[in-house]
Amino acid sequence: MHKAVDEMGIQSTFRGYGPEQGYDFLREAVKGYYKKHNVDLELDEIFISGEYEKNGDGTKRYRRMAELKSVELVFERAKSDLGNILDLFAKDNTVLVPDPVYPVYVDTNIMAGREVQFIDANGENEFLPLPDKNVKADIIYICSPNNPTGAVYNKEQLKEWVDYAHKNKAIILFDSAYECFISDKNLPRSIYEIEGAKDCAIEFCSLSKTAGFTGTRCGYTIVPENLGNLNKMWVRRQTTKFNGVPYIVQRGAEAVFSEEGQKEIAENIAYYKENAKVISDTLTECGIWFTGGKHSPYIWLRCPNNMKSWEFFDYLLNNAQIVGTPGAGFGRNGEGYFRLTSFGSKENTKEAMKRFKNLFKA
Amino acid sequence: MHKAVDEMGIQSTFRGYGPEQGYDFLREAVKGYYKKHNVDLELDEIFISGEYEKNGDGTKRYRRMAELKSVELVFERAKSDLGNILDLFAKDNTVLVPDPVYPVYVDTNIMAGREVQFIDANGENEFLPLPDKNVKADIIYICSPNNPTGAVYNKEQLKEWVDYAHKNKAIILFDSAYECFISDKNLPRSIYEIEGAKDCAIEFCSLSKTAGFTGTRCGYTIVPENLGNLNKMWVRRQTTKFNGVPYIVQRGAEAVFSEEGQKEIAENIAYYKENAKVISDTLTECGIWFTGGKHSPYIWLRCPNNMKSWEFFDYLLNNAQIVGTPGAGFGRNGEGYFRLTSFGSKENTKEAMKRFKNLFKA
Repeated sequence: MHKAVDEMGIQSTFRGYGPEQGYDFLREAVKGYYKKHNVDLELDEIFISGEYEKNGDGTKRYRRMAELKSVELVFERAKSDLGNILDLFAKDNTVLVPDPVYPVYVDTNIMAGREVQFIDANGENEFLPLPDKNVKADIIYICSPNNPTGAVYNKEQLKEWVDYAHKNKAIILFDSAYECFISDKNLPRSIYEIEGAKDCAIEFCSLSKTAGFTGTRCGYTIVPENLGNLNKMWVRRQTTKFNGVPYIVQRGAEAVFSEEGQKEIAENIAYYKENAKVISDTLTECGIWFTGGKHSPYIWLRCPNNMKSWEFFDYLLNNAQIVGTPGAGFGRNGEGYFRLTSFGSKENTKEAMKRFKNLFKA
Repeated sequence: MHKAVDEMGIQSTFRGYGPEQGYDFLREAVKGYYKKHNVDLELDEIFISGEYEKNGDGTKRYRRMAELKSVELVFERAKSDLGNILDLFAKDNTVLVPDPVYPVYVDTNIMAGREVQFIDANGENEFLPLPDKNVKADIIYICSPNNPTGAVYNKEQLKEWVDYAHKNKAIILFDSAYECFISDKNLPRSIYEIEGAKDCAIEFCSLSKTAGFTGTRCGYTIVPENLGNLNKMWVRRQTTKFNGVPYIVQRGAEAVFSEEGQKEIAENIAYYKENAKVISDTLTECGIWFTGGKHSPYIWLRCPNNMKSWEFFDYLLNNAQIVGTPGAGFGRNGEGYFRLTSFGSKENTKEAMKRFKNLFKA
């Protein structure tokens, strides 16, 4: 990024309006990254974006709630490729989302006037629901590793979704924002690791979680050429409605995919995974059911003593001064569950889990 | 920007999700800038944005046209605050735009299904139309210094528009993207230099032209608190639909407003104004009518020998290998006119004007 800043100050290397889909140097880097997971992409299938997601406010609000002990929960509607992609779909398309779900999937569709159907994710299916043949849908949202549950689909399970999409002529919108947390080579980091996915899936990723790009802002969206008109329509949409990501930011993103960048990121992710392990071990010790935390930064736990989500929020706040995310905010099936995050410091995580153990150890 | 890049690499100075309206350091800088022109703003009236305008494609397309000698002209629709602001207005509001006009004003409104009325800008009123008491409008677009004509309203003329807005309870959307080209202290750089404008006007500006931010991407929008609900609605819109401008970019924008930044920019603008003078002098020498070029980067000329805009485009391209922008692309009243730009190198501008003189000198 330092080099890019310098380039912008010299006439011969200055860059003005850039390609809206992103510079080729970054698209090449993304292509190379996918290649490592045995996914072949064309440059024309890769779109660089600046506004992948918006959940910082959620976090800010929870922090503020901890201050105010307020219990009103308002989720943000997002301006993002995940929302923008809906420009390409008819209003009478039916949308299928898992419950619990990252609320932006729901809100953007409700705002557009679409019918939303829910598929139950719960303890029984370990929060990894599989398609129901009796349900017809045109647009299917899948997030794996999942936010909020941290659950991860394996290849066989994702294949069922791809087959279902083919049968229903549906499109899967696959959110892979947490793919970098997957360390088991048998688990898919991209839906395109599944045969046939290039005919039915669009994939969204961000560098926010991968490389701390929350304040730097860069992500990417994959729209396969096999999707025909959808790829062309997305090109048209982006070139007319989007100005592109700042050049300097794209150079920063490029560095993320370099050998050195990947090494540094791996260290960072290992740090958070260590936190996740501290949390998981504590929950195991306390005999509390949970999912996630292994290939995901999130740990999704069943509230102890049959507490409801918000009851547990208050209890944890008042008795241990720990703040987490009530599962009820993610949908009906989130009630009675709670999300803990590994995105903290090692010291704070250890201290929080010490207090947690004091409260709940059998 | 170098300092900001370093900060992002250190835990204690790292910045994650930032305030969507922009960091206070930059809002303070914008406030200080307006103060220099005797305009007092509150921080809450200043919104930092990343997507002010989109016309790079226009330029790219003209360049490409020059290659292909194609004459089809397609203007881009913009994704920008100038378009986004329309989210706050009812669909049945009537929009008033001058003709010729920067096409984005028209397209975004037509896309939203609004009725658009035109007010004639032409040689008679020196492309500075004044309000017509018989026309009712709810939303009024004014761009001064103007794109494409380079014409600049004086304070008395702008006051007429402000009075008209008050009388009609209309809102003026004031595009001040080229304000930095104004060197006459009596000419308004901001509509808020006009008494009463804070009750009826929203102002849009960008650093694209001011400081070469086309590839760095940063601008700002002023929504006065006197506009009551509009300010609150814009806060709500931005905090829910916009993620904010990258921190590093905002630090770059802050530097634009520093003493050193202002000095460097002044040198840059003086360079372009020298080009504008070369063009203006040539046109005067050739006896060709024109406006702009003094407090604007653009020169708007009447095509010689009664040529139509595209006829002149072809003539200039074929006989002198000079490329400009046909006025007809900006509306009915643009026919027979042509836009030249000072955003080139001194050498190219001189060479182009040498060739121009050879063709048209009486």
